Amino acid sequence: MASNSAPSSWQNLVAQKQRECQQKIPREWVLSGDLLTDLPARLLEYDVPRRSGLLSDSELDITQNYTASQLLVRLASGRVSSLDVTTAFCKRAAIAQQVLSCLTETFFPEALQRAKYLDEYLQREGKPFGPLHGLPISLKDSFCVEGTQATVGYVALLKVEPCKTNSALVKMLLKLGAVLYVKTNIPQTMMTADSENNIFGRTLNPQKKILTAGGSSGGEGALISFRGSILGVGTDIAGSIRIPALCCGVYGFKPTANRIPFGGQVSGAIEGMPGLIPAAGPLAHSIADLKLLMSTVVGDGHAWEYDSSAVSVPWHGIPRGINDPANGVLTIGVLGEDEHFPLHPPVKRALDSAVEALTRAGHRIVHLDSGGDEALSVSYASRLAFQYFIYGPHKDLVAEAGEPLVTSVAKGVAPMFSGPFPVQHGLEPFDTIQALHEARARVYDAWRQIWVDLKLDVILAPGAQNTAVGFDTYGWPPYTVLWNLLDYPACIIPYGKASKELDPEPMNTSDDVQPNYIPDEVDGAPCAIQIITPQFQDEKCLWAADIIDKALDMYGKQ
Amino acid sequence: MASNSAPSSWQNLVAQKQRECQQKIPREWVLSGDLLTDLPARLLEYDVPRRSGLLSDSELDITQNYTASQLLVRLASGRVSSLDVTTAFCKRAAIAQQVLSCLTETFFPEALQRAKYLDEYLQREGKPFGPLHGLPISLKDSFCVEGTQATVGYVALLKVEPCKTNSALVKMLLKLGAVLYVKTNIPQTMMTADSENNIFGRTLNPQKKILTAGGSSGGEGALISFRGSILGVGTDIAGSIRIPALCCGVYGFKPTANRIPFGGQVSGAIEGMPGLIPAAGPLAHSIADLKLLMSTVVGDGHAWEYDSSAVSVPWHGIPRGINDPANGVLTIGVLGEDEHFPLHPPVKRALDSAVEALTRAGHRIVHLDSGGDEALSVSYASRLAFQYFIYGPHKDLVAEAGEPLVTSVAKGVAPMFSGPFPVQHGLEPFDTIQALHEARARVYDAWRQIWVDLKLDVILAPGAQNTAVGFDTYGWPPYTVLWNLLDYPACIIPYGKASKELDPEPMNTSDDVQPNYIPDEVDGAPCAIQIITPQFQDEKCLWAADIIDKALDMYGKQ
Repeated sequence: MASNSAPSSWQNLVAQKQRECQQKIPREWVLSGDLLTDLPARLLEYDVPRRSGLLSDSELDITQNYTASQLLVRLASGRVSSLDVTTAFCKRAAIAQQVLSCLTETFFPEALQRAKYLDEYLQREGKPFGPLHGLPISLKDSFCVEGTQATVGYVALLKVEPCKTNSALVKMLLKLGAVLYVKTNIPQTMMTADSENNIFGRTLNPQKKILTAGGSSGGEGALISFRGSILGVGTDIAGSIRIPALCCGVYGFKPTANRIPFGGQVSGAIEGMPGLIPAAGPLAHSIADLKLLMSTVVGDGHAWEYDSSAVSVPWHGIPRGINDPANGVLTIGVLGEDEHFPLHPPVKRALDSAVEALTRAGHRIVHLDSGGDEALSVSYASRLAFQYFIYGPHKDLVAEAGEPLVTSVAKGVAPMFSGPFPVQHGLEPFDTIQALHEARARVYDAWRQIWVDLKLDVILAPGAQNTAVGFDTYGWPPYTVLWNLLDYPACIIPYGKASKELDPEPMNTSDDVQPNYIPDEVDGAPCAIQIITPQFQDEKCLWAADIIDKALDMYGKQ
Repeated sequence: MASNSAPSSWQNLVAQKQRECQQKIPREWVLSGDLLTDLPARLLEYDVPRRSGLLSDSELDITQNYTASQLLVRLASGRVSSLDVTTAFCKRAAIAQQVLSCLTETFFPEALQRAKYLDEYLQREGKPFGPLHGLPISLKDSFCVEGTQATVGYVALLKVEPCKTNSALVKMLLKLGAVLYVKTNIPQTMMTADSENNIFGRTLNPQKKILTAGGSSGGEGALISFRGSILGVGTDIAGSIRIPALCCGVYGFKPTANRIPFGGQVSGAIEGMPGLIPAAGPLAHSIADLKLLMSTVVGDGHAWEYDSSAVSVPWHGIPRGINDPANGVLTIGVLGEDEHFPLHPPVKRALDSAVEALTRAGHRIVHLDSGGDEALSVSYASRLAFQYFIYGPHKDLVAEAGEPLVTSVAKGVAPMFSGPFPVQHGLEPFDTIQALHEARARVYDAWRQIWVDLKLDVILAPGAQNTAVGFDTYGWPPYTVLWNLLDYPACIIPYGKASKELDPEPMNTSDDVQPNYIPDEVDGAPCAIQIITPQFQDEKCLWAADIIDKALDMYGKQ
């Protein structure tokens, strides 16, 4: 966007930052111009890391053939050094950045130095530094890492000095033995599903470059999909972990808020107003690795020592719920399509296929029906969440720097075409807060009742009405934001692919908010399902997601 | 108050309610006029239940010689029937009401019927109905019990029909096998430490009738102290469980908010505004019984099924914290006196004696010092809590009925003599909310830091600057409300007695808010200490309180 306008103060700031970022990529990790020309849309299949020749066979092996949990076993036993693992992921992340623009800050030298320290520690002490010993973990740009900036894509924040303290989670990860090496890209405002901003540009989707990588943790989604990271942490207030996960074909988990410490991050948000509470959570290549991050960080419930907003609730090994899950049969409530947000054919096909597979696997399927109760409708919850997002005061960090809005922000998508505001517009502040609270209490209660009446273990739902779609067309995220409104844990499991052969008919939504289904465009894009449990049942959510993931592997068609 | 003014609509309503309540006490349980004349101040010592001749030896035994946990063992084995236990407590509660005015609603016939049902169930099924099989439990008036009113002392609510549904906790207690038989008195507005209102009158303190029984769960405190209940549930937003506990010499526990389901209660409060969150919790005669209520209601974390605001976090058997408590040595931070709220000599003596005893028992004592940081000061937290209480809109249910304010409400105590408002007065609503949030975040963080830096297991603090004092003089509750502001669990342990011999010097606080120390008046009043842990560490709080309680028994002087 900057290129067409005359140079100005904000552009100079950006240009300088971009130079600095570029210079931090070691010369020997820079891709050749030849390789960068005419890259195909389906980058993953093209396998840039191997073609680049920059990674040794061992480095390709390290980055491609293990889960984080498996790497940890090798790291803890000394079969592989943290320096080797960190080098491999630093290189691969540097390559990812050059083809996907998925990174913001990089701190490769510091990461390699820490890896060396951890290797020496293991050798000297005969035991790993902690349960995440030597493992590189990537972080969304909003986390503060001492000595680096956290601009979250706001030009205004380029003037802010590098962070002097670490975010609570960063402190914990370091104490647990992790290696931090990169931070990842986000959208301007962190409130769209296109990770584009005027500083770091647009993150591309490695599954198919012409599609959005999702947002707001889009850099994480792209980097992990590219295997430039094996485990990353994003944040989610409307779908910002789950949207990139489903767009990029990786696993993503939005926990109950404040189970992973959220404190000490940078955002443009005003704190303390009643509303939806953002949650930090993992993106990875397996349920096992989502569990790894949750179980090590939540652990004995010590997060409160780092962050007074974190809840001191330990991670439970044993799932809990109203049914005895001992026999392994889950009661799965299936949330179908909301009339205002019809599912794109590939999404519907994936959901139907999952239900079939889970039925074959012996699980009990219950189709959920709102019975006309708006408190149970996806679109009502969307409008209520939207009203929560807009009702209070807001900072305008974009205007502060004079930078233009990126397209996805300028579009200002909203779910208001689906119905009226749940709460009367224009009430006094206190009345607005109370009315919103009452409306939300009705939604809480309706879902609680459904859960209890139907004896559900989990809900199976689409993650979105669509797969990853063309730039700046993702629209409003009804199927993810519902679970933020309720603060229910929700897990994205990649399942199947869009196919123009199987779903050849386009679907036109005929409005400016929802994306159209364009078979050619999204052909090959990942599909996904979403698994949900009630608040604080994070353990059960991942436990059930694991059972479901395995059942889909065994019984699924896709 | 009503007696001096001319009859009017509100007075007729009250008179009718009082007649109804009185008629619900069976004729054969009515105390003789002789017994009621010239009752001494120290009612407990006088032993009205024995003198009354209304309770059999077995009923005196049942109500006097067991904890709830011990009764449950006998109930579950059939050694004692629920009918016998329920009859005994109904009788004793009826006596308590006649001398203390501690009850609001009674439902003795329904209780006896349920007890019979449970006895038959045990005989028929050969197993108890649930973990609370057959045990009578008393409830603060704010809980809704089907078929009875929940006026919480507001004349305006006398016009409201009896409750058609049970509060979430009531549903759970019934499911767990408990017997409900009475609800207990509270202050008008539920926001003072004198449980007086124009419907049910003033609850007296059985330890010494001339002293307040505390509030707002004052009826619970008095009833349990009198052993008209062995286990009761109150609620606490500023000290409303702990104040009656310390005034009446019983154990009381304010858990982390929403661990015990709070939903479906009646109050005059407006919901949904950011502020202090009230918590429901037990009052009893032992730590074991506090644990009993917590562990059975919280259980596997199923409370969410009854109340969408309850957190689905199970009760842990094992204490958690930053220290390994395996060796049984606690690190105890001692919170001393705030300069603005000096401790009455008996309170100070009890605290000092407890510290000595715990030192002798081998625990590590750390004296806390705010170091001049107002975020760590009791009076600053008091003022912040007070500002939270007053900043938003309020319903005026008193004015609605035209009833007069009771004295303790009319006094309108506040901690503002101790310093300025933490947040500028007169800001716009949204700005006020943000500023309060920021101020509270500083308090949260300061306490978190103290806890971590000093590696505390628990904090030992006074429960109040005073013991139970003369009517309408209790003042502001700085030493309890601090832990509501932080949402930290806090447990009152009775320890020692006020003594005019040991502390003969009066202490004049020279203001209209704080109570004076009047040696004659409070002589013999119970003293207490308070044990606190961080949010969600309820298990650890009670576990440590148990260790401390036993150490005080063994090493304490009082």
